[in-house]
Parts: sequence; C-alpha cells; structure tokens
Amino acid sequence: MIFIGERINGGFKDIQRAIKEKDTSIIQNWAKIQSEAGANYIDVNMGAASNKLEDFIWMIETVQEVVDTPISVDSNKPAFLEKLVKICKYPPIINSTTADKEKLDQIIPIAVENNTSLIGLCMDKKGSPQDVESRVELGAMIFSEAMDKGLSEERIFLDPITMPLRYLQVQVKNQIEAIKQFTVLSSPHPHIVVGLSNIASQSKQVRLINRVFLVMCIEAGLDAAICDVTDEELVNSAITAEVLLNKHIYSDSYIKAYKDSMRS
Amino acid sequence: MIFIGERINGGFKDIQRAIKEKDTSIIQNWAKIQSEAGANYIDVNMGAASNKLEDFIWMIETVQEVVDTPISVDSNKPAFLEKLVKICKYPPIINSTTADKEKLDQIIPIAVENNTSLIGLCMDKKGSPQDVESRVELGAMIFSEAMDKGLSEERIFLDPITMPLRYLQVQVKNQIEAIKQFTVLSSPHPHIVVGLSNIASQSKQVRLINRVFLVMCIEAGLDAAICDVTDEELVNSAITAEVLLNKHIYSDSYIKAYKDSMRS
Repeated sequence: MIFIGERINGGFKDIQRAIKEKDTSIIQNWAKIQSEAGANYIDVNMGAASNKLEDFIWMIETVQEVVDTPISVDSNKPAFLEKLVKICKYPPIINSTTADKEKLDQIIPIAVENNTSLIGLCMDKKGSPQDVESRVELGAMIFSEAMDKGLSEERIFLDPITMPLRYLQVQVKNQIEAIKQFTVLSSPHPHIVVGLSNIASQSKQVRLINRVFLVMCIEAGLDAAICDVTDEELVNSAITAEVLLNKHIYSDSYIKAYKDSMRS
Repeated sequence: MIFIGERINGGFKDIQRAIKEKDTSIIQNWAKIQSEAGANYIDVNMGAASNKLEDFIWMIETVQEVVDTPISVDSNKPAFLEKLVKICKYPPIINSTTADKEKLDQIIPIAVENNTSLIGLCMDKKGSPQDVESRVELGAMIFSEAMDKGLSEERIFLDPITMPLRYLQVQVKNQIEAIKQFTVLSSPHPHIVVGLSNIASQSKQVRLINRVFLVMCIEAGLDAAICDVTDEELVNSAITAEVLLNKHIYSDSYIKAYKDSMRS
C-alpha cells in the first residue's frame, strides 16, 4: 500500500496560519507525525492559503528539513510544477493532472524529465464523471498518453474520483467498478489511488466510512490512497486487507512487520 | 445483510456447561443479547457437548421461550433436521448440507417440505476445496439441485468455505473470487454466506481481521454471515459497506436507521 499523507494542506486552519505566518513548527510537526505513521509520501498543498510559488517552495523545503519522506506536490499548475519538482530531494509524485489534453501535454513531460510519478484524475473540463464508462475512458486516455510520452506504468497513478457518499451515494459503486476496470488496462496495471477523505465529507461517521470504503477499494484493486495516515485503525485495516489478499505474508505480528518495513 | 448469531454453540465452554446442566439462563441470555444486537437468525449448535436429539430440541425450545428470532438449525444429520425444523416457531434456516449427493437428496426435501432456507457448504467427502473452480463447481451443483427440487434462490445460501488466514493465506483470495462467481450463477443470485470466525482462527487480531474480511466479502457480493453479532464494530462495518454499495439509503444516522429496521 502506498500511503500519501494528506494533512499538510492549506485547507486546514493550522496549515493556513502556518503558511501566512511562515511558522515552520506546525508544518514540520505534521511532516514528522505523518512520516512516523508510515506515510510513503507527504502531500503538500497550499489550498486557498496562498497562490505564490515562493510559499509553495517554502512549504516543501520546510518539510524536507525534517523528514526524508518523498513529497506529493499537490498542484495542477505546470509553471509551478516545473520549479517545484526540481527542489524535491527524492523523486516526488505530481498530484495531479486531469485528462484534458493541454494539461497532459504540459504535465506529463515534466514528470518524464524529472523522474517523478504522476496522479491522473479521471475528470476533464466537462467536470467530474457520473458513470463507470467515462471514468474508465478518461483513465485509459491518461494512461496511454503517459505511456506514449515515456512514463512507465509504475509511475502512473489513476484516480477514479471519489465523491461524497452523503451527496452522491450511487457514485460510490461506480468508482469501485472503475477501479476494477483499471486493473485490466494493462499487465502490470498502473497504480490506483483515491483521495479518500472525500468519501465521508460532511458525514458523521467519518473514520468508519473512510476505512470501510478503503478496504472495499483495496479488494477492487486499489493500492494507494491520499488519506489521514495518522488514523491508525485506517492504516491497520488497509494492511489487513492486503494481507488477506496475500500481498504480504501473514505472521501473527503482521501489522508490526508491515510498519517496520514501511519505516526501513 | 443477514446476520446469523454464532454464539449458542457447544464449542463455547459456557454453552457446553449449559447443555450438560440444562441451564436455560446461559442459553437464553445469549439468545437475548444476539437478538437485541440485530441477529436475523440465532444459530443453535450442540458441538461436541451432546449428540442427543432431545438436547437439541431443548436448546431450540429454550431459545424460543425468550426471543422471536428465527433459528439456524446447525446440524447436518437428516434424521435430526427432520424433527428439529418442525419445532421451529418461525421458518428456520438449515445449517447445512454439503455438496454430497446423498446429503442433498435427503436434506433439500426437508427444506422444501418445511419451508426453510438452506445453507450449502461448497465441500464434499473429498474435503475442503483448495481452488476457486471447485468451490464454484460445488456451489453450482448445490444450487441447481436445490432449484430442481423446488427451493427458490431466495432460500438458498451458498458458503464458499472460509479457512484460517493463519494457515491457508492463499485460500482467502480464492474464497473472495468464488463469491464473485456465485453472484453470476443466476439473476437474482442465491444468498452468499460465510462462517466468518474461521478466518481469524488462532490469529491475534481477531476482530480486525473479521471485519476487514467481512467488508471485502460484501464488496464481492456476500449478503449473509454467521458471526459474532455482538461485535458492534463488525456489524457497523457491514452496514456501512452495504450503504456504500447503495443497498440502503444513506442518512446521517444510517447505522441507527438500519438497526431500527432490523428490530422491527
């Protein structure tokens, strides 16, 4: 499982304040907590807190001062990405491109030239997909464009677009079905990722919904998530799902064994 | 979701003692606890505590004195089943037949004539299945025999045979795949059930493994489980999985709404 820690995002009030006040301690604290919880990547997102490249550079550098965990550069602006991926100490993941041709034409080459991975959102200018077919069509387009331009499947992450259960209940099933279809796009197939926290947006049972949905997605073929990696029950559920699917060898202390391997 | 409460089983020491001492209070306490937790059926199993029909009759009558929840008559002896289903106040489920022809020939008619449901274990005299194909083959055989003899699909439950993760890790995936294939046997398809507690047998993370496995099975198409219905987190996870699959309408209090409907 590839865990991408979601917490350093200007959408959270403490991060917003940290960006405005250039408070490194808040950012670094979340970087350390998420890294210790086993994040494979630390997502860095300015949200609406700033639109300045220098602030984004400051955020990434602030994180990199305290952890060696690779960065998930959460921006869809090619001009920003071009600069940001170059300051990453370890190969980052670009989060993200849509399926729009002009985005793909600009962002894929940045990923290829800078040896990064890339998340492709299965949506385009027309908006978010409302059925399985358009998710798969957009995913296949991103995948083939990325492969054609020189990005191998292990560096491509397809995101079928998670929508809130509360508002779009029928879309949950469509998303899981799209995950299944992504697994047969190629062999080996690209990574499949979700922005997990969207599923329980505005719901009351946030953690329960998050972990049940994540387990269902893993059963369907998902192998990555942008999520709250500090939710231990969530992480343990994902590890357990992968052990049940025989992706890691069972031992009585399989959770500890997995976490030790995440940190090594 | 059809929850079958597993706890009144002579394999548990308190139940074993209750059978030997004809202590109704222990049995009735578990009947009430499981019924209140939302069991759709109360499984009644003598285990090795007794092999006397009169003890089995006593157990079922003891349960029926305090709850209106239908019984899951846990025996594979046709001579016993014949008598036991007749003392059930509400249409019971027979748990279970194997795919052996002589069992099917004896047990299916008992189910048909007494208006019961029937769990068919996808195993036979040769033992438990070690791959997907034999599970599906045995399941299809039970299903077609039962349909031919007059049992409709809503009264047939196929069990793909759950084996312990600890000893047979590779079988977990085979079982989930068998569940998927059972869903395309017919439309509507028969119920699909697991004896859940086998999965975490001898493991340390029993509840975590139980609930993650159950969610994965529900995603694959399962709609029933013989399980610890008093494990609230397990029940809530199963309800959440079904809400995510759009089987029940989401509301902010969907767990309460579901449980209220279970009790009504």
